[in-house]
Amino acid sequence: MPSVLITTVPFGDKNQLPLKLLENSGIEYLINPLNKKLNEDELAEMITDFDVIIAGTEQITAKVMDCATNLKMISRVGIGLDSVELLAAKERGIIVSYTPDAPAKAVSDLTIGLMLNLLRQTHVSNDRMHKGEWERFFGRRLGEVTIGLIGMGRIGIGVLGRLQGFGCPRILVNDIEQKRCLETAFKFEWVSKEEIYREADVISLHIPLTKQTKGMIRKQELELMKPDSILINTARGGIIDENDLYQIMKNNHLSGAAIDVFEQEPYNGKLTKIERCHLTAHMGSMSVDCRTRMEIEATQEAVRFIKGQPLEGIVPEEEYEAQQE
Amino acid sequence: MPSVLITTVPFGDKNQLPLKLLENSGIEYLINPLNKKLNEDELAEMITDFDVIIAGTEQITAKVMDCATNLKMISRVGIGLDSVELLAAKERGIIVSYTPDAPAKAVSDLTIGLMLNLLRQTHVSNDRMHKGEWERFFGRRLGEVTIGLIGMGRIGIGVLGRLQGFGCPRILVNDIEQKRCLETAFKFEWVSKEEIYREADVISLHIPLTKQTKGMIRKQELELMKPDSILINTARGGIIDENDLYQIMKNNHLSGAAIDVFEQEPYNGKLTKIERCHLTAHMGSMSVDCRTRMEIEATQEAVRFIKGQPLEGIVPEEEYEAQQE
Repeated sequence: MPSVLITTVPFGDKNQLPLKLLENSGIEYLINPLNKKLNEDELAEMITDFDVIIAGTEQITAKVMDCATNLKMISRVGIGLDSVELLAAKERGIIVSYTPDAPAKAVSDLTIGLMLNLLRQTHVSNDRMHKGEWERFFGRRLGEVTIGLIGMGRIGIGVLGRLQGFGCPRILVNDIEQKRCLETAFKFEWVSKEEIYREADVISLHIPLTKQTKGMIRKQELELMKPDSILINTARGGIIDENDLYQIMKNNHLSGAAIDVFEQEPYNGKLTKIERCHLTAHMGSMSVDCRTRMEIEATQEAVRFIKGQPLEGIVPEEEYEAQQE
Repeated sequence: MPSVLITTVPFGDKNQLPLKLLENSGIEYLINPLNKKLNEDELAEMITDFDVIIAGTEQITAKVMDCATNLKMISRVGIGLDSVELLAAKERGIIVSYTPDAPAKAVSDLTIGLMLNLLRQTHVSNDRMHKGEWERFFGRRLGEVTIGLIGMGRIGIGVLGRLQGFGCPRILVNDIEQKRCLETAFKFEWVSKEEIYREADVISLHIPLTKQTKGMIRKQELELMKPDSILINTARGGIIDENDLYQIMKNNHLSGAAIDVFEQEPYNGKLTKIERCHLTAHMGSMSVDCRTRMEIEATQEAVRFIKGQPLEGIVPEEEYEAQQE
């Protein structure tokens, strides 16, 4: 019977159904014994002999695949595919599946919370209060600012929907594809990214990390943004240049930023020195229900693959094309 | 010409129109030179000779009024009247006005932000990340928890409305008066306070501080709450017993709390020792637009009073009755 390596941790922690699904099918599995996000070398060493990997966001490169002589399937817990070299997988006949719907609600909730927080500087006040300092910060309401959303996939739409109750006067949206059907449901405008950088008070990213989006927001783009604007990244590390963000915030540009995802995770870089930069530990999808759903869906897909049943979460061709461009 | 004491600070800071309104009418004013919330003695000393006070949340007691031999009008910047001894004012022929509508939107926004925050422990993650610690916390979505709102006035309704976009499965509401008209607009249930304490995952207070609500939530009520529930107070200090809340959180009851208002402000008490207790410096109404509207409305009312024009923000009789009960 094929064996499964589970690299993403924690796994089966709040709900053990994913592990039971494997056990009930008599499938042997190993949960990443290093209990942290693996680097390329660690994964290459660990993956030997396994047939299937239930994967987090660690890098699954051609080099890793070449060490995994038995690997036939990658089942990603989550939506981002920047960590998987899809074309290398295809060349080696390795199937890749993912769970694109499961994280959307949790990430959308987190994003709205971060917007409300940063607009009122509650994170700075909380920090100061715990140090014994009382200072009342002025802030802004969602109902008086211009929002800019870059990326209108599952999560972008979730954010757009949640914003409707807050009476935002302008919501600017950018995506490579303008989904016209959204225009009947929500009040917003399609604009260019540059217009968002220049005009939005709150800018939030909901795009994948691809060759096209890597380093998309550097010094030049940050300087286009209003001095008191707010930038939120709950999408992927690497889209914003972290060093440029640090430099510009150090020079008092931007009234706040919220960064949940980093080029290198776990993160312990210079942004930790900026008090008004809100930092979280890649927790976008970490609601118990969404995380559980992601783990169950990815495990069910692995079980289906091993049993030779039809797959339900196969990565579509356009994801391969995006990595080819 | 009568003269005005402005005790609430900051005042006229982001928008100077309130000060211009006074100047254009030739009214002399003094802004609280101590630049902090005044205690009873400080206010009693400062208020002598002034005819009108544009007031924050400092205590305006019978003792203070007895030192204010010229005082004819109190114009409160905001909605709460727990700080004003209304019956003592009435006995002395002192008119009291307030600005009950202005703060609602800002407080409602803050409350939703705090709910989203606490459900995901983003404040704890932010704290840890700034200390160089990476830990991924599991959380919950608004769409999977039971919300309990105590108080369904202007702010409670604002919170209820904003929640509609998040798909909450149950919203429990308590108020002394059941406003039936709300039932056509929103999905929720009228229940007792005890039912909210026992069943809600997120409990938020939107009631005034009165004789009836002072110390309403003590050890006994806190113990009724679910061990992993969340308690939010953006209403008034004194409704929750701070010492009981500290003790119970120290013993790991409640997964989080967010406290914006305190018995004694500025606050620097024991809750600052509890990492998962989110603290802010009475910032509920502190959006620039709401704060500006509050200051303008309170100043316009003072000007109307001085000019002998009809008043628009006079405190209604039921507020006097609430202090009599």
